[in-house]
Amino acid sequence: MTDDKPLIGRLALVGIGLIGSSIARAARVNGLAGHIAISTRRQETLDRAAELGLGDSYHLDAAEAAKDADLVIVSVPVGSSGAVAEAIGPVLKAGAIVSDVGSVKASVVRQMQPYLPSHVNFIPAHPVAGTEHSGPDAGFAELFQNRWCILTPVPEADPEAIDRLAAFWRGMGANVETMTPEHHDLVLAVTSHVPHLIAYNIVGTADDLEAVTQSEVMKFSAGGFRDFTRIAASDPTMWRDVFLHNKEAVIEILGRFTEDLIALQRAIRWEQGDILFDLFTRTRAIRRGIIEAGQETAAPDFGRPHGKPAEGDKSA
Amino acid sequence: MTDDKPLIGRLALVGIGLIGSSIARAARVNGLAGHIAISTRRQETLDRAAELGLGDSYHLDAAEAAKDADLVIVSVPVGSSGAVAEAIGPVLKAGAIVSDVGSVKASVVRQMQPYLPSHVNFIPAHPVAGTEHSGPDAGFAELFQNRWCILTPVPEADPEAIDRLAAFWRGMGANVETMTPEHHDLVLAVTSHVPHLIAYNIVGTADDLEAVTQSEVMKFSAGGFRDFTRIAASDPTMWRDVFLHNKEAVIEILGRFTEDLIALQRAIRWEQGDILFDLFTRTRAIRRGIIEAGQETAAPDFGRPHGKPAEGDKSA
Repeated sequence: MTDDKPLIGRLALVGIGLIGSSIARAARVNGLAGHIAISTRRQETLDRAAELGLGDSYHLDAAEAAKDADLVIVSVPVGSSGAVAEAIGPVLKAGAIVSDVGSVKASVVRQMQPYLPSHVNFIPAHPVAGTEHSGPDAGFAELFQNRWCILTPVPEADPEAIDRLAAFWRGMGANVETMTPEHHDLVLAVTSHVPHLIAYNIVGTADDLEAVTQSEVMKFSAGGFRDFTRIAASDPTMWRDVFLHNKEAVIEILGRFTEDLIALQRAIRWEQGDILFDLFTRTRAIRRGIIEAGQETAAPDFGRPHGKPAEGDKSA
Repeated sequence: MTDDKPLIGRLALVGIGLIGSSIARAARVNGLAGHIAISTRRQETLDRAAELGLGDSYHLDAAEAAKDADLVIVSVPVGSSGAVAEAIGPVLKAGAIVSDVGSVKASVVRQMQPYLPSHVNFIPAHPVAGTEHSGPDAGFAELFQNRWCILTPVPEADPEAIDRLAAFWRGMGANVETMTPEHHDLVLAVTSHVPHLIAYNIVGTADDLEAVTQSEVMKFSAGGFRDFTRIAASDPTMWRDVFLHNKEAVIEILGRFTEDLIALQRAIRWEQGDILFDLFTRTRAIRRGIIEAGQETAAPDFGRPHGKPAEGDKSA
């Protein structure tokens, strides 16, 4: 910003977990908001946010935080977004931007829009960024840097408001893209939702085996399994809601995944090595593309520490 | 070692890729071998190994490297291990240890044992460690530190020889466990082989979608997908061989995985949120166990760099 006035006067954050608290930190560090009002339903979480100094005011009542806000960002499990909209709808000022960070978008539009007055600009959003940790302590100001934030504005939203929200996300280091909620939900089903479901599933399958002990699974996890456990350690409530609210796209992509997997299983059974080799060669190129797109580190093994016991190690 | 004599007099390494070259480096750094003889079939790879100074002598002929060796470690795709055994069998000296690093063990025993004279100690092994990179440049001396190496000795192997091979792996920083080849193959099917197949498969499924562009898959991969691309970038020849040579165990675990996945899909279709929530809660505990077992970093997102463009980034 080149002048003294911040982009957003009053920023209300409803929900202060990994994403909400990262927005609070990034907005502060980058001087994007004049006042940060924080709201969450649990007293304990609100107290922790205050201890961390994440905002300027703290509210158990979402409506109190959202009153007079220029931008409200709802960062709660998507199954709760309708209830939040119902609570804040009556107090929203004319011209306010209402947005969210949910991992599904069509359902959020369906849940929230009925409660929002026509004088606000409703611009759902989804920053494609995160870690497997949750809660206000897990956030950090750099989380969105060089990551993509997808905006799915309703047709009635003012273009100037869309530009302002895009500028807010760019101010936190993100790249911004706009698409329809339905296309978002299909894209994310393949880049995020189905990968999470698969990861949860293989970790469950391993845990259920009678002939292999849990200790063996853990000791020999460096062969690949441990990569899956990271995303299978993500917040259970958030992810339950994602699957229930993006049902159609997830089931569609899962159907293709299972069909492809069964074809691979058949290739193994019939020892069709060429089919395996050709796929394994093709997939290498995709990773190179992701690294070139700046979405991944080129360091081997994600740059995990090697040559010293991992933190928390009790075996060394 | 407390005396001057190294644990192994002549160490022959047949194959000098990621694993072979890491053994060469780790054996050197830890003073475990008096002479390191390196063999590989391609002149170009052998020249590169020599440029990197990985050994003391370099041979295109595996038998030449293995002659007079006290320990021979075969580090080639498992489908090639029979041919290597046939080549080196006639020159092996009495009491020599013959081992390997293959990701499957029963097949390696079946392939190699017929060619090995009864006067050698055949002790197949599998260090559960690696990265997605391959070739002699990809190796590093710390690769095995705090990782597990599984030994699957044939019943006739001399216990003293087993102890010596275990000491060699411990000397490179590994923990050692002994089990049967068949149990190894089942454990690794779940901790490594099926996770790799699933990763290859989802990357292929994503690449095939008509409604989602490859550019979208890459840009929004930070939602989880990019984790899968790392292991789907592993060496295609090595992994083709793993699946063809551990067919039964892989098909058994895949069957369970698919069954579990279809049950989850059904829970999504019928909106049985509790089934999802319970699984997602259980899988979190497994990751904690892996971190406590020293097999994983506790850092969020594997400790990937945040807050600056990834190496190779062209979008920033």
